[in-house]
Amino acid sequence: MYAGPVQDLIDELGRLPGVGPKSAQRIAFHLLKLPKEEALRLARAVVEMKERVALCARCFNVSEGDECGICTDARRDTRVLCVVEEPRDVVAVEKTHEFRGRYHVLQGAISPIEGIGPDQLKVRELLARLEPEQISEVILCTNPNIEGEATAMYLARLLAPLGLRVTRIASGLPVGGDLEYADELTLGRALEGRREVGA
Amino acid sequence: MYAGPVQDLIDELGRLPGVGPKSAQRIAFHLLKLPKEEALRLARAVVEMKERVALCARCFNVSEGDECGICTDARRDTRVLCVVEEPRDVVAVEKTHEFRGRYHVLQGAISPIEGIGPDQLKVRELLARLEPEQISEVILCTNPNIEGEATAMYLARLLAPLGLRVTRIASGLPVGGDLEYADELTLGRALEGRREVGA
Repeated sequence: MYAGPVQDLIDELGRLPGVGPKSAQRIAFHLLKLPKEEALRLARAVVEMKERVALCARCFNVSEGDECGICTDARRDTRVLCVVEEPRDVVAVEKTHEFRGRYHVLQGAISPIEGIGPDQLKVRELLARLEPEQISEVILCTNPNIEGEATAMYLARLLAPLGLRVTRIASGLPVGGDLEYADELTLGRALEGRREVGA
Repeated sequence: MYAGPVQDLIDELGRLPGVGPKSAQRIAFHLLKLPKEEALRLARAVVEMKERVALCARCFNVSEGDECGICTDARRDTRVLCVVEEPRDVVAVEKTHEFRGRYHVLQGAISPIEGIGPDQLKVRELLARLEPEQISEVILCTNPNIEGEATAMYLARLLAPLGLRVTRIASGLPVGGDLEYADELTLGRALEGRREVGA
């Protein structure tokens, strides 16, 4: 119904995750009304990103070079690996300043419903890193939801016989949270993971 | 926190209407994982649209030429104008096949909250068309919501002294709708707009 290039843009926008036909239309008309220079900034940002950014050859985090800034940082502890699902999780962990090792980004989590099994993830690549990099600990830092837990359990079983430390991040009440409003699963996990405190 | 080009893209995406920081991140990583050719299709669609599409010089609908396909269509009735808010409304009216006149796209509706008054809309341009195009009827086809009604009332008052027919689209129950589930405003409008039926 729209002039060709407008419909083409609506179609392309509609392919993006979380963008339905209505939002695609809304975004397209927004771009149409925008000064040309501003609209082209979006196009350039896509091109720039695709030309300059790829996945790190070692850990599959986003990277501007062959290997990412964390993998090439000589100050990081190379023997501890934090396994996460997505690059955004690397950012989340980095923000804590609690981790000085390296990462391994699986590029997803096991999800039978979506047809994602270990072969669709960077699991083989994780196994291949363990010996040459002399990894002593693997921290399973996948999301505490069904897919993330399944992935962590799968990896825990896979890594168990290899004689290295395998840990899972704690589940429990969020800091600043309220017992009264915690769901029973989280509170159950918090109890299960209780720790001795000094007198 | 992300490699420069990724963050730049997230920023640009976050400027789009209805795209929050989380969706911007999700879309950026989606584009990162996509084959280069597919991701660049989006960039090209934006460029194409900005280079080939503009607003019709006469009615402000989207147009690939100086004037849009409807304004240049010799079979349309040039004396009846359907005034709508946005190009998408032109598409909606065209789909009914009930209208054979031309359009005038206001590019929005009066909204004091958003600081949009008649000066921000194509109202002056509407007035300027009436005499040279010998318009005999103006159909006020803005949305039946607060902004659209305010815009219609404003235009009705403005056009009243000019000696042409000014009409407003009917409000009422949607076809296939159910009296029981209609909101009282709509049902009130349906009663108010009741029409005599033949015996």
